[in-house]
Amino acid sequence: MAERPVRQPADDLSLPQPYLLFLGDVTEPSFAKTAFGLADWAADKCVGEFALGETGVSTGLPEMSPAEAAAAGAKAMVIGVANPGGVIPEAWRAALVDALEAGLDIVSGLHNRLASFPELAEAARRNDRRLIDVRVPPPDITVGNGRKRSGKRLLTVGTDCALGKKYTALALHRAFVARGEEADFRATGQTGIMIAGGGIPMDAVISDFEAGAAEKLSPDAAPGHWDVIEGQGSLFNPAYAAVSLGLLHGSQPDVFVVCHDPRRTMILGLEGFALPSVEDVIDLTIRLGRLTNPAIRCGGVSFNTSGMSAEDAGALCAAESERLGLPVADPVRGEANFDRLVDNCLL
Amino acid sequence: MAERPVRQPADDLSLPQPYLLFLGDVTEPSFAKTAFGLADWAADKCVGEFALGETGVSTGLPEMSPAEAAAAGAKAMVIGVANPGGVIPEAWRAALVDALEAGLDIVSGLHNRLASFPELAEAARRNDRRLIDVRVPPPDITVGNGRKRSGKRLLTVGTDCALGKKYTALALHRAFVARGEEADFRATGQTGIMIAGGGIPMDAVISDFEAGAAEKLSPDAAPGHWDVIEGQGSLFNPAYAAVSLGLLHGSQPDVFVVCHDPRRTMILGLEGFALPSVEDVIDLTIRLGRLTNPAIRCGGVSFNTSGMSAEDAGALCAAESERLGLPVADPVRGEANFDRLVDNCLL
Repeated sequence: MAERPVRQPADDLSLPQPYLLFLGDVTEPSFAKTAFGLADWAADKCVGEFALGETGVSTGLPEMSPAEAAAAGAKAMVIGVANPGGVIPEAWRAALVDALEAGLDIVSGLHNRLASFPELAEAARRNDRRLIDVRVPPPDITVGNGRKRSGKRLLTVGTDCALGKKYTALALHRAFVARGEEADFRATGQTGIMIAGGGIPMDAVISDFEAGAAEKLSPDAAPGHWDVIEGQGSLFNPAYAAVSLGLLHGSQPDVFVVCHDPRRTMILGLEGFALPSVEDVIDLTIRLGRLTNPAIRCGGVSFNTSGMSAEDAGALCAAESERLGLPVADPVRGEANFDRLVDNCLL
Repeated sequence: MAERPVRQPADDLSLPQPYLLFLGDVTEPSFAKTAFGLADWAADKCVGEFALGETGVSTGLPEMSPAEAAAAGAKAMVIGVANPGGVIPEAWRAALVDALEAGLDIVSGLHNRLASFPELAEAARRNDRRLIDVRVPPPDITVGNGRKRSGKRLLTVGTDCALGKKYTALALHRAFVARGEEADFRATGQTGIMIAGGGIPMDAVISDFEAGAAEKLSPDAAPGHWDVIEGQGSLFNPAYAAVSLGLLHGSQPDVFVVCHDPRRTMILGLEGFALPSVEDVIDLTIRLGRLTNPAIRCGGVSFNTSGMSAEDAGALCAAESERLGLPVADPVRGEANFDRLVDNCLL
């Protein structure tokens, strides 16, 4: 069957909002990470949640059917859950078709393309609704040019993948706004893109355009404006350093914050690669980042201390702060520590 | 009209050979760079050339029609010319259809996809021939794993783009083979891929898979075997450094050779970016390359001295060799200089 081309996010990278959060039939909250992330960081863009039956999993938002959500102003239903493998199971598809019939677009960050399911493609066509895969980058990305842009930029970088770069960027953005700064959170991964309502999935961009995509993501802005950019990968991860370097060069950050998990000793999922030290990451980020912003500096360090006692976490952050001569904080703990990190970024 | 999917190079990355070189109707030899590159570096894989009329441009290979070339054993006609813009003009298409009718596949490195022209797609279907766009990476690339592979590897790197990385890798590969080494040239760009008869267009690979693609390009080999890998971009080019870093990490080279144009002072096509020094490139390549090969070392430097007198070029290479403490040679000049570079790579 010939497929109508799937409409993608518009050139301004924006997604249809507000959302209805789809929880599917999962009974394990950790599979609903995207929905919880949206409820935590973009509650004002969510009208409610929709689960298939009594699953026991809830974000705390009001329960609504797709039709009720549409009546409440929702523009899209977001798939807020992932299955192992990132597939869209048979059991969800009737609900997705219902959402399209109710006039909602569907937004997905799963590996399967929505339009690869004939019943979804057909229902989208019939209702003139969009099937939006946030893993697909916008089509009009060009190569980078290295030109210095106006406005200020902060990038989170990491000693590895999956240790808090998105979370840290969101927390810094929220703190900047709370202090009256003009700031945008710039998303580079699927969950971040759903939270922000736009962005570019940097790991899905063709290599030649990686820096250019980062340039597009944080365009010229007012001199005092901050773009707080979600980092990806690590310069020390042998699988993903290309993504990290293109993002660093194109973001041309004035300030970066190093994200680290103090309990991790090895690069995730690879054999034989030790985690770099925070100092190594600071040093290499400055060396490489200077190419597009000679004034780049480290604003501080964000520790992911989940699983540690409050006392141990506080002591570790204090000791590391002393040792590194930089603010070290876990954004979810210790207001004062985190305030010092924010102070130092805004210097 | 529904299009049959275009068959791509096989999983072993191999192209159909030998070739007939298509010169189109271009009257300016510089537009036929791909054909000249193939005639220079892969003459044993070319049965002849085919131009549209009396153009005055020739590689020196015998003139043949597609039918004559097929009778002489050709398996594919390669588009050996580029127009400004990289498009396939109307005037060439009947000749491309003739080649398909004669039983040849078509191989193209141009920007336009061959199958986007309905008459070519239709003729390929009718004759069960392939339309091969070498700019399209193979579909089965996975993320990198950083595992050390057997065999030895050399990568050419550069102070910038377009200053001799492909040419240097080809010359080193030829010299290695002449000395009795077991060696393969591993191509990473479109012309190199046509010369090698296979390879991966590294700039067209999705960023997340960049290092993984480089790992696939130079698989495990016999302990004494050399892969001589064509470099791409430069770690100091703010548009393309992501490509260069993924290629460096995935190639895990034992030896690298820095390619440089001594007359160039600024990064090509970008404003305000000074060319790095050769020492800067050596230092950063070792620092970043150590992640996947702690034994990485610089084998020497390749200068592109075209446009200089033989005397000036020789004096410059000698002076720079003295200054850097490494062999410096232009592969097209001075056998003795280049021999020292080869010696030092094979140490």
